[in-house]
Amino acid sequence: MSATASSNPVLVEVMRGALVESRHAGAVAIADATGKLALALGDVERPIYPRSAVKVLQAILLVESGAADAFGLGDAELAVACSSHSADRIHVEAVRSLLGRAGLDESFLACGAHWPVSEEAFRDLVRRRARPLPIHNNCSGKHAGMLAACVHLGFDPRGYERADHPVQIAIAGIISETCGIKLNRDDAGVDGCSVPTWPLPLVALAQGFARFGSGALLPATRAKAASRLAQACFARPDLVAGEGRFDTIAMRALAPALFVKGGAEGVHCAALPGLGLGIALKVDDGAKRGTERALAEILVSLIPDARTALAEQLSGEVLNWRGLRVGQAVASAALTQELAAIAIAPRRKARAP
Amino acid sequence: MSATASSNPVLVEVMRGALVESRHAGAVAIADATGKLALALGDVERPIYPRSAVKVLQAILLVESGAADAFGLGDAELAVACSSHSADRIHVEAVRSLLGRAGLDESFLACGAHWPVSEEAFRDLVRRRARPLPIHNNCSGKHAGMLAACVHLGFDPRGYERADHPVQIAIAGIISETCGIKLNRDDAGVDGCSVPTWPLPLVALAQGFARFGSGALLPATRAKAASRLAQACFARPDLVAGEGRFDTIAMRALAPALFVKGGAEGVHCAALPGLGLGIALKVDDGAKRGTERALAEILVSLIPDARTALAEQLSGEVLNWRGLRVGQAVASAALTQELAAIAIAPRRKARAP
Repeated sequence: MSATASSNPVLVEVMRGALVESRHAGAVAIADATGKLALALGDVERPIYPRSAVKVLQAILLVESGAADAFGLGDAELAVACSSHSADRIHVEAVRSLLGRAGLDESFLACGAHWPVSEEAFRDLVRRRARPLPIHNNCSGKHAGMLAACVHLGFDPRGYERADHPVQIAIAGIISETCGIKLNRDDAGVDGCSVPTWPLPLVALAQGFARFGSGALLPATRAKAASRLAQACFARPDLVAGEGRFDTIAMRALAPALFVKGGAEGVHCAALPGLGLGIALKVDDGAKRGTERALAEILVSLIPDARTALAEQLSGEVLNWRGLRVGQAVASAALTQELAAIAIAPRRKARAP
Repeated sequence: MSATASSNPVLVEVMRGALVESRHAGAVAIADATGKLALALGDVERPIYPRSAVKVLQAILLVESGAADAFGLGDAELAVACSSHSADRIHVEAVRSLLGRAGLDESFLACGAHWPVSEEAFRDLVRRRARPLPIHNNCSGKHAGMLAACVHLGFDPRGYERADHPVQIAIAGIISETCGIKLNRDDAGVDGCSVPTWPLPLVALAQGFARFGSGALLPATRAKAASRLAQACFARPDLVAGEGRFDTIAMRALAPALFVKGGAEGVHCAALPGLGLGIALKVDDGAKRGTERALAEILVSLIPDARTALAEQLSGEVLNWRGLRVGQAVASAALTQELAAIAIAPRRKARAP
């Protein structure tokens, strides 16, 4: 596996002084709803674990099952069900609301606890000498959505996190159909929050996000569910991640031209509904520094407004402890050359049928 | 530069479920005091910024100038001068002692401030609603040592952090001579703590650490200074990093067979005085996860006792938020095969002259 892995091109170079100090290799697929590739850089056929980048696909069941309507879920509850949230007050309240509408409480959450991503929320807990709870886990909204789906579908919510629970089997089916690929259930990994993460190649993920964003090639009920989730995230990008974070910044500025969601270990997915395209990206080493800088470059090539919206992400400034600029993360020549080739073409050739 | 960079082999694979989820490529040099390579994996000739991995070489001036004797510095002050410390109370006290003995105070520190590496120290500041100070910077001991050398040598301490200050020029000279390579001063980078970091290939760093550890091919005064610094770090490994951290754990268990020091962006250097070898390692993406797992594997191949001492580092367990084991960081076949080839040989062929 090593030989294959190291063949991915460098996507991002981190400069310091006169040298490239560090570099992030990886692979990128941009595809339309049929799976036709607008860009393939690196190994886009090798399965990867999409982790939290597919939370919006995992949340489709919550809507298409009728649970969202039955429980009267609004934008806040749906956006947080698709989120990797920072555990600020607004996030915790939205998760509690989602659980409460399904008649459940925090004791059902099987995601485990970690300190809040939000510095403010973290410090607040420290000052109160409190420990983090499962609701502070960045995945608690996704778990609350899975639990609500269980209640509506009559599944026992206990054990909902296991790969063989009917709610996970139903979600795996939706991901498989949306991405147009059979999932190998034996190859499931366990995510940081204890639910299964199913391996998929980047090309299938990109295709799935093209379908998610445009509705193309999806059954009508699923297309409607996807649209409702996207609209919820566009309405409440503050709930999908948190202040200062990539997905919140990008969707706040660029929705509805862009849906975007990151996951652990350097995965990021995006949908560009207007262009009928989906994007899936994985940095080999798992570093968000590489993923977000590369994705910013990709988005700018496809959505001109992204240059202003993502100015800080594109600048890639490396500051030292005195605030001096000592380096810069830049897109590699391999990435920028590939992007230059597609930037003139996608509107013409990559629209979904 | 991309093409060269991506040619380094994968050193560490991070497994999850059925897949290699992430991987860390990099380069490793193991050399004796003459620069003869016992192992070269990846591009060991390309210059890298050694960052904090060379703090012990930067501290040689403090001892060989006579400053350490003049100010009556003991093991604690010398160990913290070589440290990337956690800012626990013991570290802050040792830095204050070093500054005080040189007749200076914290106001001279030009390293900038960051939150303590130590979780306990960090939480203590948060609870007191205090902000971190320069003395909490993991590099404050190195800066205090540079300041003390300035005082002893009659240099104006103001501006001591700049590449053209006489203390930095003297330190660059020591690094250049110890590593047996001319430094290109135009290629200096600015470190996170604002002092210069000089580019060196891994092979020169490995040679320099072989000389540092054994004294071979060093002038007598420098060999004595190196030995005194190593003894200080061996006596106080708790001050070189902090509880739970690689360098403290490794030296506490393995000194005097091992001196080891990590730096930012995936650099790590080590000296094995008994074998006359030095080790220098850089992970391309800068991730400590890759560097420390690879270094643990390397050390086990050279120091049998390391298997027990570094058991946790070698296990490479990836736990999720509920404490379930969901993956493992393992040494790649490329690394383990190279190590198997040298493990039987170094005592015989790689001893310094």
